[in-house]
Amino acid sequence: MANEAPPARLRVGILGASGYGGAGLIERLARHPRVRVEAVGSRQYEGEPVAASWPQLAGLFEDLRFESTEQVLERSDVIFCATPHGATAPMVAQALEAGLRVVDLSADFRLDPDTYRTWYGAEHPHPELFSLARYGLVELHREELVGARLVASPGCNATAASLALAPLAAAGLLGSSAVVNVVTGVSGAGRAPSQALHYTEVNENARVYKPAGTHRHTAEIEATVGRARVGGKRLVTHEPFEPFPVSFTPHLVPMSRGILATCTTPAPGGELDDDALLQVFADYYQDDPLVVVQADLPQTKAVAGSDRAVLSARVDARTGHVVAFCAIDNLGKGAAGQAVQGFNVAFGFEETAGLTSGGIWP
Amino acid sequence: MANEAPPARLRVGILGASGYGGAGLIERLARHPRVRVEAVGSRQYEGEPVAASWPQLAGLFEDLRFESTEQVLERSDVIFCATPHGATAPMVAQALEAGLRVVDLSADFRLDPDTYRTWYGAEHPHPELFSLARYGLVELHREELVGARLVASPGCNATAASLALAPLAAAGLLGSSAVVNVVTGVSGAGRAPSQALHYTEVNENARVYKPAGTHRHTAEIEATVGRARVGGKRLVTHEPFEPFPVSFTPHLVPMSRGILATCTTPAPGGELDDDALLQVFADYYQDDPLVVVQADLPQTKAVAGSDRAVLSARVDARTGHVVAFCAIDNLGKGAAGQAVQGFNVAFGFEETAGLTSGGIWP
Amino acid sequence: MANEAPPARLRVGILGASGYGGAGLIERLARHPRVRVEAVGSRQYEGEPVAASWPQLAGLFEDLRFESTEQVLERSDVIFCATPHGATAPMVAQALEAGLRVVDLSADFRLDPDTYRTWYGAEHPHPELFSLARYGLVELHREELVGARLVASPGCNATAASLALAPLAAAGLLGSSAVVNVVTGVSGAGRAPSQALHYTEVNENARVYKPAGTHRHTAEIEATVGRARVGGKRLVTHEPFEPFPVSFTPHLVPMSRGILATCTTPAPGGELDDDALLQVFADYYQDDPLVVVQADLPQTKAVAGSDRAVLSARVDARTGHVVAFCAIDNLGKGAAGQAVQGFNVAFGFEETAGLTSGGIWP
Amino acid sequence: MANEAPPARLRVGILGASGYGGAGLIERLARHPRVRVEAVGSRQYEGEPVAASWPQLAGLFEDLRFESTEQVLERSDVIFCATPHGATAPMVAQALEAGLRVVDLSADFRLDPDTYRTWYGAEHPHPELFSLARYGLVELHREELVGARLVASPGCNATAASLALAPLAAAGLLGSSAVVNVVTGVSGAGRAPSQALHYTEVNENARVYKPAGTHRHTAEIEATVGRARVGGKRLVTHEPFEPFPVSFTPHLVPMSRGILATCTTPAPGGELDDDALLQVFADYYQDDPLVVVQADLPQTKAVAGSDRAVLSARVDARTGHVVAFCAIDNLGKGAAGQAVQGFNVAFGFEETAGLTSGGIWP
Repeated sequence: MANEAPPARLRVGILGASGYGGAGLIERLARHPRVRVEAVGSRQYEGEPVAASWPQLAGLFEDLRFESTEQVLERSDVIFCATPHGATAPMVAQALEAGLRVVDLSADFRLDPDTYRTWYGAEHPHPELFSLARYGLVELHREELVGARLVASPGCNATAASLALAPLAAAGLLGSSAVVNVVTGVSGAGRAPSQALHYTEVNENARVYKPAGTHRHTAEIEATVGRARVGGKRLVTHEPFEPFPVSFTPHLVPMSRGILATCTTPAPGGELDDDALLQVFADYYQDDPLVVVQADLPQTKAVAGSDRAVLSARVDARTGHVVAFCAIDNLGKGAAGQAVQGFNVAFGFEETAGLTSGGIWP
Repeated sequence: MANEAPPARLRVGILGASGYGGAGLIERLARHPRVRVEAVGSRQYEGEPVAASWPQLAGLFEDLRFESTEQVLERSDVIFCATPHGATAPMVAQALEAGLRVVDLSADFRLDPDTYRTWYGAEHPHPELFSLARYGLVELHREELVGARLVASPGCNATAASLALAPLAAAGLLGSSAVVNVVTGVSGAGRAPSQALHYTEVNENARVYKPAGTHRHTAEIEATVGRARVGGKRLVTHEPFEPFPVSFTPHLVPMSRGILATCTTPAPGGELDDDALLQVFADYYQDDPLVVVQADLPQTKAVAGSDRAVLSARVDARTGHVVAFCAIDNLGKGAAGQAVQGFNVAFGFEETAGLTSGGIWP
Repeated sequence: MANEAPPARLRVGILGASGYGGAGLIERLARHPRVRVEAVGSRQYEGEPVAASWPQLAGLFEDLRFESTEQVLERSDVIFCATPHGATAPMVAQALEAGLRVVDLSADFRLDPDTYRTWYGAEHPHPELFSLARYGLVELHREELVGARLVASPGCNATAASLALAPLAAAGLLGSSAVVNVVTGVSGAGRAPSQALHYTEVNENARVYKPAGTHRHTAEIEATVGRARVGGKRLVTHEPFEPFPVSFTPHLVPMSRGILATCTTPAPGGELDDDALLQVFADYYQDDPLVVVQADLPQTKAVAGSDRAVLSARVDARTGHVVAFCAIDNLGKGAAGQAVQGFNVAFGFEETAGLTSGGIWP
Repeated sequence: MANEAPPARLRVGILGASGYGGAGLIERLARHPRVRVEAVGSRQYEGEPVAASWPQLAGLFEDLRFESTEQVLERSDVIFCATPHGATAPMVAQALEAGLRVVDLSADFRLDPDTYRTWYGAEHPHPELFSLARYGLVELHREELVGARLVASPGCNATAASLALAPLAAAGLLGSSAVVNVVTGVSGAGRAPSQALHYTEVNENARVYKPAGTHRHTAEIEATVGRARVGGKRLVTHEPFEPFPVSFTPHLVPMSRGILATCTTPAPGGELDDDALLQVFADYYQDDPLVVVQADLPQTKAVAGSDRAVLSARVDARTGHVVAFCAIDNLGKGAAGQAVQGFNVAFGFEETAGLTSGGIWP
């Protein structure tokens, strides 16, 4: 509506656009004032219109068809990879080689090559690129993300648990280890059908999976919390750190979206009460537009469709523990929202451009 | 960002803002470029901040507290009533008297006083105001809504069924009556707790309620379809009409949002096939930004969080019936979205200002 | 507890025992006083213990392993086929040839070869065996089921709709056709994973599928209601009949179990009221232990885990329609329960042996 | 069917029979071979037939109407109290006074008067009766339950957590405290409507409640685990014990039934691996008909409608923790099933009489 020419919009491409991460990226980037969704990639739907995969987009984006990776790379200034881990690193390499900048939602550049080998049981496919990666947990890595060529967007469980534990780490309120249990909705497991995720097997069912520190997000949490013990709130992906031991167990529950992390750690002795504990969190996140610290206990519905994280905490004085909670939408702050947030910081845009705050209820 | 002063924003007030309709109005009006949410009313939460009722709004709208009806009326140019039927008419009267314009989401001004008496078993509380009301089904009443002082926003079931049947009515493709069955999510019944809507009574349960034409939305459907048989697509609230008989049965199913209407009517003999039938719908809604006509069968998830309606239809040639389908989000196109759409038309704003198209998936 | 030797138990085999129908059969036949579950078949799990497929049976049936069809046939006196349509007929042929009796839960012997050809678009694979089949809707075919060698157990939708319409048919209360809409839980679509039945695609979603008389259960309903117009309550599978036209549309809703059928038909003129209508149903089913006729509107939770059907009906006097309702558990009265009921009648056992009445709530 | 007269059946009365615990008791006791459900109590439904509260029982128990407490006590030999805590103790007193025996599902006699005061903030209403109480966690208290006049049936969360931690306690495998997180279905909160349990507020929502050791079931867990450290598997309600500190946080998730407990404790150093750990559990529960110990990770669907508990465990060697899991149906082993199991042991009946093993899937 202004008279001058609007700034040229950045051309963004989305790989893996027929998965849930991809849908979230389309939704957010389509309303982002500084970009244009130029191309979307999908092997499964190549050549088909966007609505072939996404019924909610029927009649919208009628010029947009799913294309091959090559076609997407060709016409984009920046790409978002919402593609499976392992398969993503080569696409990232190709994109960087071609001079594009990359926001990677896969796990491929979240862990340094040594840690990667330990948790994935294989050599990292492109260790030489890791030096370009910046871990995209914006609240803790904001400074080093500015100008990043490769944003390694965090895992959903790691986001929730790290946001809950980092203030304790920075304040010296962690014991020697923490127990992190999350309950998570089903969309985190992706859109590919399987018997374990068949409706009738999931509905009215709560189950444990990858317990006792066997889930790979454990490594991300341990790294971030380890860094925060030393670095407080200005973390640097490439500085050496001591991992903080976490016994992590996720639980799958019958809902589509949402992660609720409950993190329990022995508290160092002292006079901490709930108010003082909450103040630690409030101070730590005072300048973060997408984090809410509140006395009320978190619930995932409060962040459904939102890109915010809601945090609270309690002292269990009787047993000498501190319990910290974080609720996120695993597809919002846990995936597409956080990726766009990291992108915004990397490119110098408004941090919340394209993002949502309030979500929908019910 | 432009240099000139932005146009002054209209001050809107929302009554019943602690119910689901109210949440949808806050969500939409807060992002509407031409208005400011000036005041929100709630008897239950009077004096408390918005987040006391709405966890998803924690940390947002921190200056907004629930107020009394009087306080809301005082500072608003226009009010939205998301309040219970019966209790709303007096507030509408008061607001109109004070010179405000009104968008009423309750049932109080949808039916003419005679029809109202038949279906509600009581005299209309303010029959003298009915002449001001315009029925807010925008696609069919758009012209007469311009400048309306009182928009009577349609019921959710009536919206879905009327959108599905109107094109058939206008095209002379209705038999002597129609069978309308809807499946509906639970939020349509509101937020007040009751044993019938207790989680464990609704989950894993599908049930019939108010069947066989005893639900009051029946009267709205019969009026709209009756009008459309004569008026095509330019309907007028205050012209006499012949109701079209509908045997309507709603079904409550375990989901929060969504209405799926299935409307079956004997088809007049002839050569109609699916393509020709779909073309009737496509033609009828060709200029409507919030209606999607598609060959694919509708599903409610495609409109979750959206203000659009998705329509399709099939010929059942073997039995001589036509079956028309409509999916809406009962809280979007079925409530807050439609109310804001009607408001936009009444005030001469962009019809989709503040509204959403794509919704969220999953 | 009696002193004399108990009667020898019949050896039953279950084919397709790793599907939902199979689980229901194991559950019911394991508590049946006159049979022993001798062998269970599954291609997918052959050689594995029952608990490999069924977590709820961990530690139970430890001697039972899934076997091949041949192994199951070898050691059984009677087999239940809970196997896919098309693949089942050859196994039935083989079993009958070997002198076994068969209860077939698939669709393969429900329709006469001519009707089968119309609806399945192919020749019936074993038309010569159809003369042995008895349609296993016990309430309407009880007499001819006694001694049956091949029970063709009805489809789940057909069961619900036929039970709702048959009393009207027998009483001459049907118009020229009926509109049958059902809402159905997801387990009716089986246990095989697919994107359409992936948890996150089904949850918070209601959708239409196979509408307007394209679902094959339509043929069963039309046949049964057609027979009931003439035969009342003593139907015979092999007598000629005139199908009654039904416009049938199923709706998939987010729940695991349950079918709710709503059947609307123009009523012949007259003085029918709700009480008289309910009496028609009560009289028709007065001797049926698994049918409940009630004034209250049906809900599927009332039959979850149960083998009963709950029926009610209403007169829509204003539009001249009758609306009949039926709720069943699609895996109970709609599948395993009905199969065991048919088996009981065929073999002269107590009709409800092995079955449940009350179900579980919530 | 035997010639001799059957043994006289015990007359049982159920108080609180219109709640979920009551429904479970009716279901189990109605099929119990040694009892007759003589009377059911409900203030809310007094005078009405059982089906007024329980749609799944329409047409069944037609002679049974809800009665007053007095009427139930008058005609019963034993009563089950599925009534609210606080309100129950006086009814227990009255029943014991009248010579009846009692199975109490409320919390009123689970904690000794001192511990009760600490957790309930009030004096125990009938401390003089506590000496009669036997804690009804049958697996651990079986011997002392024989002949009990007052069975204090455990809380649902306490059952799951105690079953998971007791084998570790008995084997000396507990650290200085444990973190117990449960995810629980909604039926544990009862049937009374409230906004927090309204369908649309619970669906698609996971939330924390009563965290960090503020839930009263914590006291039961701490007592039982404390006793098991000394007493192994033969616990005695009235012996002094040292509570074992537990930081307990429950999570409400959108499902009707089920509790999944995840219990994490620092493990004493040593060579424990998963197999050895599982063997500890298998040995501990080797003679318990309702406990399944398995290598597979537990899921609540495996016990839906069942009275069994499923247990597993893992060593988190990297962080030096042991994680133990237990899944139960909160209305089965967590309520009515366990109450009937305790009753059976108290009266010398078969321990599993009236109970279910396999549950239903899906």
